[in-house]
Amino acid sequence: MAFAQGGRGYDRAITVFSPDGKLFQVQYAQEAVKRGYTALGAKTDAGVVLAAERRTTSELVEDGSVEKIFKIDKHIGAAASGLIADARVLIDRARVEAQVNRLRYDELVSVESLAKNMGDIKQMYTQHGGVRPFGTRFLIGGVGERGPHLFETDPSGVVAAYKAHAIGGGAEEATEVLEKNYKEDLDMKGLVDLSLKALNKVVDGDLEAKKVEMAKAEVERQEFIKLSAEEIAEAIDEWEPGE
Amino acid sequence: MAFAQGGRGYDRAITVFSPDGKLFQVQYAQEAVKRGYTALGAKTDAGVVLAAERRTTSELVEDGSVEKIFKIDKHIGAAASGLIADARVLIDRARVEAQVNRLRYDELVSVESLAKNMGDIKQMYTQHGGVRPFGTRFLIGGVGERGPHLFETDPSGVVAAYKAHAIGGGAEEATEVLEKNYKEDLDMKGLVDLSLKALNKVVDGDLEAKKVEMAKAEVERQEFIKLSAEEIAEAIDEWEPGE
Amino acid sequence: MAFAQGGRGYDRAITVFSPDGKLFQVQYAQEAVKRGYTALGAKTDAGVVLAAERRTTSELVEDGSVEKIFKIDKHIGAAASGLIADARVLIDRARVEAQVNRLRYDELVSVESLAKNMGDIKQMYTQHGGVRPFGTRFLIGGVGERGPHLFETDPSGVVAAYKAHAIGGGAEEATEVLEKNYKEDLDMKGLVDLSLKALNKVVDGDLEAKKVEMAKAEVERQEFIKLSAEEIAEAIDEWEPGE
Amino acid sequence: MAFAQGGRGYDRAITVFSPDGKLFQVQYAQEAVKRGYTALGAKTDAGVVLAAERRTTSELVEDGSVEKIFKIDKHIGAAASGLIADARVLIDRARVEAQVNRLRYDELVSVESLAKNMGDIKQMYTQHGGVRPFGTRFLIGGVGERGPHLFETDPSGVVAAYKAHAIGGGAEEATEVLEKNYKEDLDMKGLVDLSLKALNKVVDGDLEAKKVEMAKAEVERQEFIKLSAEEIAEAIDEWEPGE
Amino acid sequence: MAFAQGGRGYDRAITVFSPDGKLFQVQYAQEAVKRGYTALGAKTDAGVVLAAERRTTSELVEDGSVEKIFKIDKHIGAAASGLIADARVLIDRARVEAQVNRLRYDELVSVESLAKNMGDIKQMYTQHGGVRPFGTRFLIGGVGERGPHLFETDPSGVVAAYKAHAIGGGAEEATEVLEKNYKEDLDMKGLVDLSLKALNKVVDGDLEAKKVEMAKAEVERQEFIKLSAEEIAEAIDEWEPGE
Amino acid sequence: MAFAQGGRGYDRAITVFSPDGKLFQVQYAQEAVKRGYTALGAKTDAGVVLAAERRTTSELVEDGSVEKIFKIDKHIGAAASGLIADARVLIDRARVEAQVNRLRYDELVSVESLAKNMGDIKQMYTQHGGVRPFGTRFLIGGVGERGPHLFETDPSGVVAAYKAHAIGGGAEEATEVLEKNYKEDLDMKGLVDLSLKALNKVVDGDLEAKKVEMAKAEVERQEFIKLSAEEIAEAIDEWEPGE
Amino acid sequence: MAFAQGGRGYDRAITVFSPDGKLFQVQYAQEAVKRGYTALGAKTDAGVVLAAERRTTSELVEDGSVEKIFKIDKHIGAAASGLIADARVLIDRARVEAQVNRLRYDELVSVESLAKNMGDIKQMYTQHGGVRPFGTRFLIGGVGERGPHLFETDPSGVVAAYKAHAIGGGAEEATEVLEKNYKEDLDMKGLVDLSLKALNKVVDGDLEAKKVEMAKAEVERQEFIKLSAEEIAEAIDEWEPGE
Repeated sequence: MAFAQGGRGYDRAITVFSPDGKLFQVQYAQEAVKRGYTALGAKTDAGVVLAAERRTTSELVEDGSVEKIFKIDKHIGAAASGLIADARVLIDRARVEAQVNRLRYDELVSVESLAKNMGDIKQMYTQHGGVRPFGTRFLIGGVGERGPHLFETDPSGVVAAYKAHAIGGGAEEATEVLEKNYKEDLDMKGLVDLSLKALNKVVDGDLEAKKVEMAKAEVERQEFIKLSAEEIAEAIDEWEPGE
Repeated sequence: MAFAQGGRGYDRAITVFSPDGKLFQVQYAQEAVKRGYTALGAKTDAGVVLAAERRTTSELVEDGSVEKIFKIDKHIGAAASGLIADARVLIDRARVEAQVNRLRYDELVSVESLAKNMGDIKQMYTQHGGVRPFGTRFLIGGVGERGPHLFETDPSGVVAAYKAHAIGGGAEEATEVLEKNYKEDLDMKGLVDLSLKALNKVVDGDLEAKKVEMAKAEVERQEFIKLSAEEIAEAIDEWEPGE
Repeated sequence: MAFAQGGRGYDRAITVFSPDGKLFQVQYAQEAVKRGYTALGAKTDAGVVLAAERRTTSELVEDGSVEKIFKIDKHIGAAASGLIADARVLIDRARVEAQVNRLRYDELVSVESLAKNMGDIKQMYTQHGGVRPFGTRFLIGGVGERGPHLFETDPSGVVAAYKAHAIGGGAEEATEVLEKNYKEDLDMKGLVDLSLKALNKVVDGDLEAKKVEMAKAEVERQEFIKLSAEEIAEAIDEWEPGE
Repeated sequence: MAFAQGGRGYDRAITVFSPDGKLFQVQYAQEAVKRGYTALGAKTDAGVVLAAERRTTSELVEDGSVEKIFKIDKHIGAAASGLIADARVLIDRARVEAQVNRLRYDELVSVESLAKNMGDIKQMYTQHGGVRPFGTRFLIGGVGERGPHLFETDPSGVVAAYKAHAIGGGAEEATEVLEKNYKEDLDMKGLVDLSLKALNKVVDGDLEAKKVEMAKAEVERQEFIKLSAEEIAEAIDEWEPGE
Repeated sequence: MAFAQGGRGYDRAITVFSPDGKLFQVQYAQEAVKRGYTALGAKTDAGVVLAAERRTTSELVEDGSVEKIFKIDKHIGAAASGLIADARVLIDRARVEAQVNRLRYDELVSVESLAKNMGDIKQMYTQHGGVRPFGTRFLIGGVGERGPHLFETDPSGVVAAYKAHAIGGGAEEATEVLEKNYKEDLDMKGLVDLSLKALNKVVDGDLEAKKVEMAKAEVERQEFIKLSAEEIAEAIDEWEPGE
Repeated sequence: MAFAQGGRGYDRAITVFSPDGKLFQVQYAQEAVKRGYTALGAKTDAGVVLAAERRTTSELVEDGSVEKIFKIDKHIGAAASGLIADARVLIDRARVEAQVNRLRYDELVSVESLAKNMGDIKQMYTQHGGVRPFGTRFLIGGVGERGPHLFETDPSGVVAAYKAHAIGGGAEEATEVLEKNYKEDLDMKGLVDLSLKALNKVVDGDLEAKKVEMAKAEVERQEFIKLSAEEIAEAIDEWEPGE
Repeated sequence: MAFAQGGRGYDRAITVFSPDGKLFQVQYAQEAVKRGYTALGAKTDAGVVLAAERRTTSELVEDGSVEKIFKIDKHIGAAASGLIADARVLIDRARVEAQVNRLRYDELVSVESLAKNMGDIKQMYTQHGGVRPFGTRFLIGGVGERGPHLFETDPSGVVAAYKAHAIGGGAEEATEVLEKNYKEDLDMKGLVDLSLKALNKVVDGDLEAKKVEMAKAEVERQEFIKLSAEEIAEAIDEWEPGE
């Protein structure tokens, strides 16, 4: 198998470079993300929307049981794709970081600063022995003094800002929709509709509220709010897929 | 052997990703759970019930000798499947966590918070070198201010909430029964009967008190109580398997 | 050699799961126990008896030189099988634990609590790198406020309570005798006789005092006492093997 | 494959010499830099200019999202090539170092001292076990009491001073332009034009503002300033490529 | 080579069990003892005698240069076989232990307690990573309140009491002599003669003072005394080998 | 390849002896030195001179950018060959050591004491795991109360005193010149000329100031001084190569 | 190659026993000593003499540059063979030990005590992971209250006392001379002559002062003194090789 020959042992030793300058363990962690469900985000001056695919394996799972979108602080949250337990651990650190920022500077942490902090933690896990990289990618969205922001962090610790972006198993299809339909002047409803349109490409069967997790942060309200099942159902109703 | 070729060494190095983004050690720990006895739980607004299969290898083992259901605090307990010694160690940590919560906040720990705490510990053992993952899965049940809850944690550290769920060797068969018979309006007797019906599918021979471990937490009493052998026998008597 | 192929490397890395969820190092430690001499115990409401096979390799070894039954505290003791040096180290820890309990709570440690403590130590040595599991199994017997107790701990850290149980090389044969002859209403003499009957199955040649190590804890006296060579000889004399 | 045979295992053990005295892991880290985008710098007595190639993979990436040129202190900054997450971590350390220098000596850190400090950190990661070298190369530029300076640090920790220099994937082509066109008497505009001319050789298609990141530190202003998209566009307009 | 195949890698990893429950590193350490010179001891109610074979490789070695019998405290000493440097390190620890006992309890350490302490140290070196087992076996002899004692510790940490015992390269031949000639009523001269008789079986050529190291602890004198070359010569003269 | 077969794995494990008593990692570090540029030194009662080959890879490198000769304290300095980043780190330690000596003893550190200190650090990196040896060799020169001194330290930690010595890639050719021309009564100009003559043998093409780095410490001035480009040019002019 | 097959991997793992009870790393360290120059010592009641072969590789090496004989304290010194950097590190520790002894007990350290201390340090490096054994052997000579002493320590930590002994590459030839010519009644001149006679067997060509390093400690003067080149030359002159 070609891949295994290319790796030839480099992949077993943590945080080691291959002869062509790649970090295999980091690349394998990226694969873990690709095996995860799809999450996406979009932002304009009006605000930012995060959405994630939800697959219910059983009727007996509680609604909203396994979160993919997490509130971090009043004004900021994140959607994760990849290993969910890894994600929860990093989200906990992000929450602590946000609280520390409040205490130390008496102000809300900026979205950028929080995203870089999460990227730094991830980078550390790619350079030191005895640990494996985090197998998770985040879309971090929020509003602050400088308006709405949407950042992504990947397993290597790279941090990038996006207008709209998708991660996880269906990232490619979702991104295609985002690229074709994103407009700089979308209002909040426009962002929600765009997110649903993109998710629609990746969910199995028809888009239903139970297949969607969604959150938004409007500039006007300066608050990151997770949508209830009813609100999501309503949004799907109001959305015109035939567009 | 196909499996061994697939693993090709990745399974020997702890906490390392394989080229397709899997953590083999975690998956093998999941196998340890599948080798364990069956445990299950179910909850409605009335309360939560935990039950576990008990196999007596010898007449000379004391009744209730090897616990699979553990009381953690007044209002909360857990059923474990997999490596029993691993389970006991985690249960001890959970008990400490519950006491710390009482001291620090002067209130009972919530079921969700305790479940996430146990998931966090498990995740840590999948990311750092020098340790192996915990080979155990838990169903954590209890009642609190926000009513009854049932959570599961797996060896990777994933935490999920369920209405009813089964783990261990007979998880598949038991889950089938749960899915077919669970109703949102079951009262405590209904939950007990459902649990017995599901266990009946996995125990060898007829369902007897000595083959069953059971606990319940009623909303009314706000207390997690392990059933005595007599109470279990009574419950089996009152149960109508012919349903 | 079939076994070595089954292990295929998993057995060299400490505390690592095999693809089918087993911990090979722990299983090999179990083999070390099977290579050890036989020890057994039995209990009723009257008290608890521990007995162990003694093999004198040379006339020049002092009687009682290599102990297999250890007194831990006034009311509690243990019989070990497997690596004797490992056993001694754990017994020392148990003695400290018992003294700490006296100091901290001003009461004798319970048999169950001591057994679980020893199980916890053993579990730790199966999950962390840089150490090997303990190659020893214990039968812990004693009397306390809640009457007589008999617990077993194995190399994985599992703790179980028994009415009667045997460990070590001749565990199978001895257990067979115990299962056939154990009665809930045995008095102390009955327990001693049962133990001798079981040991008789595993010692080479005739049962003699020099081939037996024995201890008992009567409910009446609340004390764990090792029998002298004379007392053991007397017990063998009084015993009716022809039964 | 010739390379793999040459390495024959030396490349898997961190910080180990090969028989001919090379540190393979460091050389592989150099490869990571060659896979990065091009960055370059140039200085005369007038000041120093840093420039970097920017490739936008998607319209939805925010402008300036993934920085390659970082401000470190009022008078000093750096352009990085290679692993961006590694670069960010080192830049953070450099910022701390600069602040510490202000506090401790009440003066701005010199460009040389900062460059050597970054080189020392990098060297440490090539000599101690349990870490991998940094996969990044820096051009550090700034002005100080002793005028403008331009330093490079590579993954092995080597620090060198340059009049003009290029790093990353297009280093060779860019350096050729720099060597042919650099003059000791260039003023700031001359430095900017030289940088654009060199970048022009490595960017795909025509040189546009969105493909360029640029910063400058004039001796007159004693300040390191990142150019805005408008300023870069203006500079490109004013530049005469036909030269 | 059959042995190497049997070990197949288990012998390279420290403190790891083989599939059949053996600790190879400990067994190899036992081999180191078998490569050592012979030492032996014998005791009756009269006292205890330790003796060791001495092989002078060169006329230029100082008499008594490389000790195999060490005084530990006033009333206690030990004969070692195996790696001499390992032995010296353990003897030093035993001396400290004996002094600590004097200070802490204001009494001489008992022979048994000291032997167990040395066994515990040895066991630790068989269970933790990063160290190898001690390649040495001891015969510890001394007198105390409870009379004379003779203990043996092996590389695994096992401690056993003997009336007479031999260790090292010629253990088998020497033990044969001890078993045939030991009597419970030997006086000090009888013990010395027995020791010489046993040593005579293992030394090359005739028994001479320069080939023997010897010490004794009489109950009457309560003191461990190493015999001088003259005293040993005298003992050999008085001994009747023709017996 | 003969060399690789000789190494057969010993070279991968740090600080381990090969069967014939060599430390491969140290020998490979010596190779790293041989790949470095040439440095040399010479001393008489008049003083000491250090010189090093400088190869400018590009016109754009700043003069004196990559130092090979370092001032350590007022009266002492060193020329390095091998891995330049390793050298810088050790030089920093030497500077600290020199300052500590001033503070602690209120006197300048002696050249010998400093050289041994650097040798000790290097030795440590050849005996402990988790680090690699330093890939650098030093010539340490200076003047003190006991006159001028010239010491060499190699990667194994060996320290030796020389009248004249050369290290690095051209060590052999340079040493030949030194051996043929060194005289005990050379004055400072004589030492400088000798150094130039030796360097002339190893530089590519004609000897020019830009190809030479040089420092001297005269007994009269008791100061270690690096020569400027002008001073070096002057020295070359005054030198008569035709000699 | 037979040796490498015998080692088959045991030699790569530090401080591990081979199946036949050998410590390969220690044996390889012994090889490092055999590659070293010859050193020897001899003692009678008159005093002790240490001597070592000196090979000057170049005329430009300073006389006495690389010491093989080290003064440790006023009355004690040592000659080393093997890795010189290892030797220097141990000598430094011995000097500290000697000073500590002076401070703590207000008396000079005894030769035996110092030798055992150095043996203990060496033993430690053969039993713990992460370090390699010391590749050096010492002859430690000195005078004290109990007269002159000569001890040897080898890489395994073994300590032995000698009347005369040789170590290093020419140990065999030198020992032969010592054995044939040593007499208990040699005076200091006799010891010096014996040492020269033995060295004469191992040096290349004629015995000259520059090929010899020598020290002596006379009982009368109670001082360890290194001989100057002149004193050595004189001793060679006075010596009658034709004997």
